[in-house]
Amino acid sequence: MRLALIGFGHVGRAFARLLVAKRPVFPFRIAGITTARHGAAFDDRGLPQEPEFGPPVESIEQFLDRARAEVVVELTTLNPATGEPAISHIRAAFARKCHVATANKGPIAHAYAALKAEADRAGVCFRFESTVMDGAPVFNMVRNCLPGVVVEGFTGVLNSTSKIAIDAMREGLTMEEGIRRAQQLGVAEADASFDIDGWDSAAKGAALANVLMDAGTTPLEVDRRGIGRLTTDRILDLMRQEKTIALVTRAKRSGGGVRVRVRAEVLPSTDVLASVKGTSNLLLLHTDLMGTVGTVSISPGVEQTAYGVFSDVVDIARSV
Amino acid sequence: MRLALIGFGHVGRAFARLLVAKRPVFPFRIAGITTARHGAAFDDRGLPQEPEFGPPVESIEQFLDRARAEVVVELTTLNPATGEPAISHIRAAFARKCHVATANKGPIAHAYAALKAEADRAGVCFRFESTVMDGAPVFNMVRNCLPGVVVEGFTGVLNSTSKIAIDAMREGLTMEEGIRRAQQLGVAEADASFDIDGWDSAAKGAALANVLMDAGTTPLEVDRRGIGRLTTDRILDLMRQEKTIALVTRAKRSGGGVRVRVRAEVLPSTDVLASVKGTSNLLLLHTDLMGTVGTVSISPGVEQTAYGVFSDVVDIARSV
Repeated sequence: MRLALIGFGHVGRAFARLLVAKRPVFPFRIAGITTARHGAAFDDRGLPQEPEFGPPVESIEQFLDRARAEVVVELTTLNPATGEPAISHIRAAFARKCHVATANKGPIAHAYAALKAEADRAGVCFRFESTVMDGAPVFNMVRNCLPGVVVEGFTGVLNSTSKIAIDAMREGLTMEEGIRRAQQLGVAEADASFDIDGWDSAAKGAALANVLMDAGTTPLEVDRRGIGRLTTDRILDLMRQEKTIALVTRAKRSGGGVRVRVRAEVLPSTDVLASVKGTSNLLLLHTDLMGTVGTVSISPGVEQTAYGVFSDVVDIARSV
Repeated sequence: MRLALIGFGHVGRAFARLLVAKRPVFPFRIAGITTARHGAAFDDRGLPQEPEFGPPVESIEQFLDRARAEVVVELTTLNPATGEPAISHIRAAFARKCHVATANKGPIAHAYAALKAEADRAGVCFRFESTVMDGAPVFNMVRNCLPGVVVEGFTGVLNSTSKIAIDAMREGLTMEEGIRRAQQLGVAEADASFDIDGWDSAAKGAALANVLMDAGTTPLEVDRRGIGRLTTDRILDLMRQEKTIALVTRAKRSGGGVRVRVRAEVLPSTDVLASVKGTSNLLLLHTDLMGTVGTVSISPGVEQTAYGVFSDVVDIARSV
């Protein structure tokens, strides 16, 4: 299959390495890459792992028309408040009857129902396994392995920076020191408020609710409180009671809709939700037929995010 | 699709109920059921949820020839030491070019490689999602959602009776009282030694290693120690150190083969392996591309085991 990559940062490079390693079994080739910084590169026979970039394209439309890919892989830097420019890129791909795999949660959190409808009209696949759990099977698991199941709700511990900050406070450090640790690990952005105020958890909650529960919601509609006011004294006091705090994303059906909530929850230290540390994450799905079943991912990194995109492309190849 | 059920106990009845509920979307019908106790029943148009049983069949071969099913669902009571009679039933089904779904771990633990080869020769599918995690996605998840991934090892807390017994000992009760509690919950057999001595964990470990790591092993070859010698005093002493014990099944590649081990392991109380209680279970897969990723199932019961079989039948329908 011919792929076109929009964006070529850490995830894109890891994805390209993975394609080379897996080519004997999975014959995918990258026909084009466009980046904001380095320009664009094209090769019908497949670009090498470290392509040489030429001049930038004038537009995504021009890029897609030249790359003529079957699958567009969207990996740009996201504006999380709007989901752009990823949403526009995905629309341009669907308009050209290209399948899309993206690691950007913004489009799923902000505009899933509309994008899914466009994909269906174009007769193409839309995949996004890496958007919530860094590549661990969630969306593809529900689609492929839980047939006939209704997801009634979910509970997730999905934000790394908050976990690293709380772990640091359990060692007696301040929130600021914990955030700095997350920044040194490359997990938190320079402005960590997106994580600490619960926006990242809200975006992931909206994405999950939109796909698994037809919620038609956005991060702005999530009932959200962060951990900004949490103090080390409070954490140490809870520790003496064998308790801790985690930033938990929950969803449940309520009336005709779906209610998504992000809260700093007090939990027993031995709770499964408290047991995932650092960049690890855990998602429990509450279902009608399969009870409560979930996915846990221990310390994923950029390689796993890239793998999730790869698994999406394989899923597309198997679906067409 | 036409199904034939061998065995009609708790799981079989739950499975039949599920088929009725899901028939509008998944048009499966049960053409025949054979049981050890009640005789056999046949109906080309599909048996009702509570069939009337007639005289028993003379042999499984006769049953299969009369039911003429596309998928044979094997749910008999198992001799865990041999995997029989399920192995013979599955062979008879393959010989008639029937797909097979089973909830019996014995065949997978004792004879997976041979059975898989027979299924491949017959050009049919062999599915067994409910054998290790009571229906939660494990085998189908790896096959469908982790393409190209090599499983390097795994770590699982898979036995319910040992967890219930240890939880009881943490409350100050004796091992015997804990086992009785598991028996009252319907989780442990009258002879709980199969669980306490680690045989159940060894069988699940062998099944996982055979399917996910091509181990070609059996429960007898698993390096196994149970929790029979564990005392309440020891558990309470560990609790004072914020530690606990879990019966853990681990596998890793070693030399040319795969080493599977069952041990009572001392763990921090906050460890993710210690966080699953009662009948809940957790399996972490250690992989080359997706890091450590796992499935958790909270308090599954017979309905979930039946659902796992249902998901297998859907997977077969989608594969053919």
